[in-house]
Amino acid sequence: MDLNSFIRNIPDFPIPGIIFRDITPMLADAKAFDTAVEKMIEPFASEKIQKVAAVESRGFIFGSMIASKMGVGFVPIRKKGKLPFKTITETYSLEYGEASIEAHTDAFNEGERILLIDDVLATGGTMAAACRLAERQNAIIAGISFLCELDALNGRKLLPNVLVHSVLRF
Amino acid sequence: MDLNSFIRNIPDFPIPGIIFRDITPMLADAKAFDTAVEKMIEPFASEKIQKVAAVESRGFIFGSMIASKMGVGFVPIRKKGKLPFKTITETYSLEYGEASIEAHTDAFNEGERILLIDDVLATGGTMAAACRLAERQNAIIAGISFLCELDALNGRKLLPNVLVHSVLRF
Repeated sequence: MDLNSFIRNIPDFPIPGIIFRDITPMLADAKAFDTAVEKMIEPFASEKIQKVAAVESRGFIFGSMIASKMGVGFVPIRKKGKLPFKTITETYSLEYGEASIEAHTDAFNEGERILLIDDVLATGGTMAAACRLAERQNAIIAGISFLCELDALNGRKLLPNVLVHSVLRF
Repeated sequence: MDLNSFIRNIPDFPIPGIIFRDITPMLADAKAFDTAVEKMIEPFASEKIQKVAAVESRGFIFGSMIASKMGVGFVPIRKKGKLPFKTITETYSLEYGEASIEAHTDAFNEGERILLIDDVLATGGTMAAACRLAERQNAIIAGISFLCELDALNGRKLLPNVLVHSVLRF
């Protein structure tokens, strides 16, 4: 199955000069979506993953399904102010300004092996911040998996030295 | 399994006087999460569902997993300005002001039987708007399912006259 054919290119979104990779045609096709998710988790099958975490909001689409397929719990990482219990916060740079994401203080357990998930690896700033949230709770980043990776942005350089996997590269 | 024991009550969030039902302990427990999702879809097993749609962002946690379990495609409904392709918009009232959600113009097909998903039924405004997005594309609302329902807010009164199901009621 050619998963690339389920990605729609949208020129000039969200700003002129950017080609946005629209994954909604893939999500709408049950078989393509399932194939993509299987490919996202394949390299981590023997990594003894104990929890899957993903970043709001497109990451949630993949994260919960991957947690379910792996038979482990799911941790939502959210934008600042959304999680109701006690939280820890990490801030990261955007092109203009910065943003913050949070995890509950009981989200990760010490020594727990975590697979981190998002739909797209762009600059890597969001995922690097998500990794710091898990590391601050002494969890082990066992791997990071994306559906798409934008090679030109070299987001991998910001990520921890673990297995970083992406299914589609642009 | 007592799913209620996996819901954490957070007083005064997001504002004083509100008890927030925190679902993260349930998400963290693979068996509780799976049990909850199975209970969300149980009444719709013979409804010939052809697509599952959910509203950003907590709805995504359940929607994609339910689509996967039912073997159908998934439609993300998002806040205004997030979807990259051509969209239709519906606006709904909040306690102060209003908000808008969008679907792609090719999200739903005519006559397609849709199951709509969200984590919590509160006032019903968001879900009613989501239903209108599907109906404007001539899809059929075959059912609506929530993990939690806040009875005091009587959100059902805003929803279409279809099977509306919730697993936990508060």
